Amino acid sequence: MPNLTLEVCLSPALFDYHKNEDAIVVVVDILRATSSICNAFANGVDTIIPVESSEMARQMKEKGYTVAAERNGYKLDFADFGNSPFNFSKENVEGKTIVYSTTNGTRTIHLAASCFQVVIGSFINNKALSNYLIAQQKPVIILCAGWKNKFNIEDSVYAGCLAESLLDSGLYSSNCDSAIATLDMWKQWKNNLRELIDKCAQRYRLQEKGLDDCIDFCLKLDQTDIVPIFKNDVIISHLKQ
Amino acid sequence: MPNLTLEVCLSPALFDYHKNEDAIVVVVDILRATSSICNAFANGVDTIIPVESSEMARQMKEKGYTVAAERNGYKLDFADFGNSPFNFSKENVEGKTIVYSTTNGTRTIHLAASCFQVVIGSFINNKALSNYLIAQQKPVIILCAGWKNKFNIEDSVYAGCLAESLLDSGLYSSNCDSAIATLDMWKQWKNNLRELIDKCAQRYRLQEKGLDDCIDFCLKLDQTDIVPIFKNDVIISHLKQ
Repeated sequence: MPNLTLEVCLSPALFDYHKNEDAIVVVVDILRATSSICNAFANGVDTIIPVESSEMARQMKEKGYTVAAERNGYKLDFADFGNSPFNFSKENVEGKTIVYSTTNGTRTIHLAASCFQVVIGSFINNKALSNYLIAQQKPVIILCAGWKNKFNIEDSVYAGCLAESLLDSGLYSSNCDSAIATLDMWKQWKNNLRELIDKCAQRYRLQEKGLDDCIDFCLKLDQTDIVPIFKNDVIISHLKQ
Repeated sequence: MPNLTLEVCLSPALFDYHKNEDAIVVVVDILRATSSICNAFANGVDTIIPVESSEMARQMKEKGYTVAAERNGYKLDFADFGNSPFNFSKENVEGKTIVYSTTNGTRTIHLAASCFQVVIGSFINNKALSNYLIAQQKPVIILCAGWKNKFNIEDSVYAGCLAESLLDSGLYSSNCDSAIATLDMWKQWKNNLRELIDKCAQRYRLQEKGLDDCIDFCLKLDQTDIVPIFKNDVIISHLKQ
C-alpha cells in the first residue's frame, strides 16, 4: 500500500512552508467561493475562469463574459452576480463560461498553480473529491483560503473532514500538526457543525451584510459528484479533463 | 469595564496580519524555549539575552558569556548547554546573564519587538502571566512560535489555555477565529494534555533525539510567579522592570 503524505495548510501565507510540487492541492474556501464553484458545476457550468484582480474581472465583463465578482462579501458594481452559491443557479450558469473573482478564494487557486494539480473542495462535493484523490495516488495538501491570510474555522473544519476520509482509506499518513488539529476539530463538531460555524468571524461578516442565508447549504455534504479542476488557467469538471 | 481585544496568531509568518502596535505580545514556544526561559527565571537567572543567529551566539561565547543554544533540538558545539528547561537549573543560571538562541523561539521574540511590550508565556507561568496581563489593561496578541513557520499543536493549545483565563476575566473579547479554535482545543484536551501532545510532530522530533524527558515538566501549570519581559533587547523578570 502506498504511504502518501497529507498536509493541511491553514492560510495562503503559510503555503510556502507546506509546498510540494508533486502534490495535488485542494483549495478550500467554504464561505463561499469553493462551495459556489462546486454548485456551479452541479448546475452545469461549462468553464469557470478565476481571475485575481477586480480590474481583470471588469475587463472580461467588457469583452462580453458573464462575471461573478465580490470583495468583502459585496457584489462588485459591474458584475452580473456576486459570490452566493445560490447565484450559480442552472438558469445563470448552465452551458456557460463564467469569470469569477473573490476576496480570498480565486487568489488562493492561483497560488497553488505550480503544483501537480489544483482541485476545488467543499462539503458539497466531499465524497466525490475524496474518491477522486484516493484514485490519483498522489500526496495531498489541503489549502485553506482563510480570511485575508488569517486562519479561519470554516475552512479548517472542512480540511479535517476531508483529512478523515483520506486517512481512513489507509493510503495516507500525516505528521502535520495542522492535519491532526483540524481532524480533531472535525471529529468534535461534525454532528453539530452549525453551532461551530455560528461562532466564527465570517458568519458575522455575512450576517451583517444579509448574506448568511447560504450557510446551511455550504455545510451540506455530498450535493454533487463533480470535482472541479484548475487546469490551463480555467476550472473544468474532472469528467472533461 | 474595558473591552480589550484578544488575538491568537498561529505562526510567526502570520504576525503581520494580527499586528497591533498597542498590544502586549505573548510569545509562546512550549517545547521548549519559553518553558526554559520561565524556568530560568524560577531558578534566579538575572538576564537572558535572546539572539537570533547561531553566529551571534558564538561571538557572545567568545566574549565570555554563558551560552544556551540549539538548532533543531541539538545543542550547538560551542554552547554551554542546549534548550532543555532542565539545563536552566539554579546551579547553571542563578544570578547570571545567559545568552540564548533557539530554532524558533528567539527569532519570534524579536519579531514582536515593535509592539507595546513582549512577554514570555508557558504553562509553567500561566497564572502569573494572566494576572499580569489583566493588570495592564492592554490588547493582547498570543504569538505561537510554531515550527519553522508552520502551525504546531503544543503552542496552540497553550494559547487556548491563556485565552480562557483572559476571556473569563470579562475584560477581553475576541472575534478572532484562531482564539476561538485554540480555546476549543484547550477545553477539549485540558484534562488529558499529554495525550494531545503525544500526537504532535515536535513530540516525535524530541523523542528521536532523546530529548523528550522534559515534556511533562513543560505541561505543568504554575511552577513560577515570574513573568519574563523582553525590554531593550534583553529578557528580565517583571519584578525588575
